Amino acid sequence: MNFFDVVKKRHCYRAAFKDVPVAREDLCKIVQAGVDAPSGKNAQTTEFVIVDEPTLVRQIAKLHPANKAMQQAQAFVACVLDKNPEAIYEGFAFQVEDCAAAVENMLLAITAMGYASVWIDGWLRLEGRAATIGQILGLPDTKYVRILLPIGIPAEEYKSPAKKLFEQRAWFNRYGKA
Amino acid sequence: MNFFDVVKKRHCYRAAFKDVPVAREDLCKIVQAGVDAPSGKNAQTTEFVIVDEPTLVRQIAKLHPANKAMQQAQAFVACVLDKNPEAIYEGFAFQVEDCAAAVENMLLAITAMGYASVWIDGWLRLEGRAATIGQILGLPDTKYVRILLPIGIPAEEYKSPAKKLFEQRAWFNRYGKA
Repeated sequence: MNFFDVVKKRHCYRAAFKDVPVAREDLCKIVQAGVDAPSGKNAQTTEFVIVDEPTLVRQIAKLHPANKAMQQAQAFVACVLDKNPEAIYEGFAFQVEDCAAAVENMLLAITAMGYASVWIDGWLRLEGRAATIGQILGLPDTKYVRILLPIGIPAEEYKSPAKKLFEQRAWFNRYGKA
Repeated sequence: MNFFDVVKKRHCYRAAFKDVPVAREDLCKIVQAGVDAPSGKNAQTTEFVIVDEPTLVRQIAKLHPANKAMQQAQAFVACVLDKNPEAIYEGFAFQVEDCAAAVENMLLAITAMGYASVWIDGWLRLEGRAATIGQILGLPDTKYVRILLPIGIPAEEYKSPAKKLFEQRAWFNRYGKA
């Protein structure tokens, strides 16, 4: 699939998934796109746990009864970061940015292969959910799940949210000037 | 260009650029990929100033004598965020993640079109550089330049940094287990 078509097609998907497993080969291709993403000072901070064992998938899915894509996910990718990230440049760490770039690469890969997903972040930060999932996946105490991507084949039409126009967010040479 | 080829080809580029301007049409296509990126709660927090006016380009370029790509950039995209981001979900803001996803989309678009770039972040945070560039671009006091992307046609071979293997960063169902 052409790169720009993938970018246009990608959007969050919170609806039902078909009851069809995601092949391991496809999961590896998705996560390889995450591995290939850039990272500050090439520190490659983000790690990935790919969840496709049905018992584990159900255990995680049932934590989010409000989101159909979470409920019916055929697989998950959990993005793992350090609880105490190392400062790698002048006192700064970049793992949040690294992780977001890896997530975006994976969301595009998911789209390119005919799957769908939604970027789960804030929800993990509440009610100890990241810790619960971290325990299910055997994370060491020093690590936590920052982002979770449910994956499956979309079973419904699900519209992209409305987006502002280019002219409302981008300008040449001067902020806010047409 | 095929999506997965773009992901594989993208890498940071800190070397010389050809003395050939980047067409406005191409700059718009690159930044449209940034506009199309996901954002937490669809808040679309990241704004973009595209710099292609030669005087402004030179003014920014001369701030970074150590980086050839910055020095010889034909254009820049400055990603702009709020200094005091609004909390949009349970007290959390996601603009850093939003911006990183937009940057990754743009880096892939840059690659897909035969240009090259490098993700400039930490450097901006030192010695008031973000503020200096913000002033050049007429940013309001409430906004700042978070990321800067120098853009041009690569004039040299520049190797991708070495990357860890998939097996060193990704596992199925259990963290760290082959």
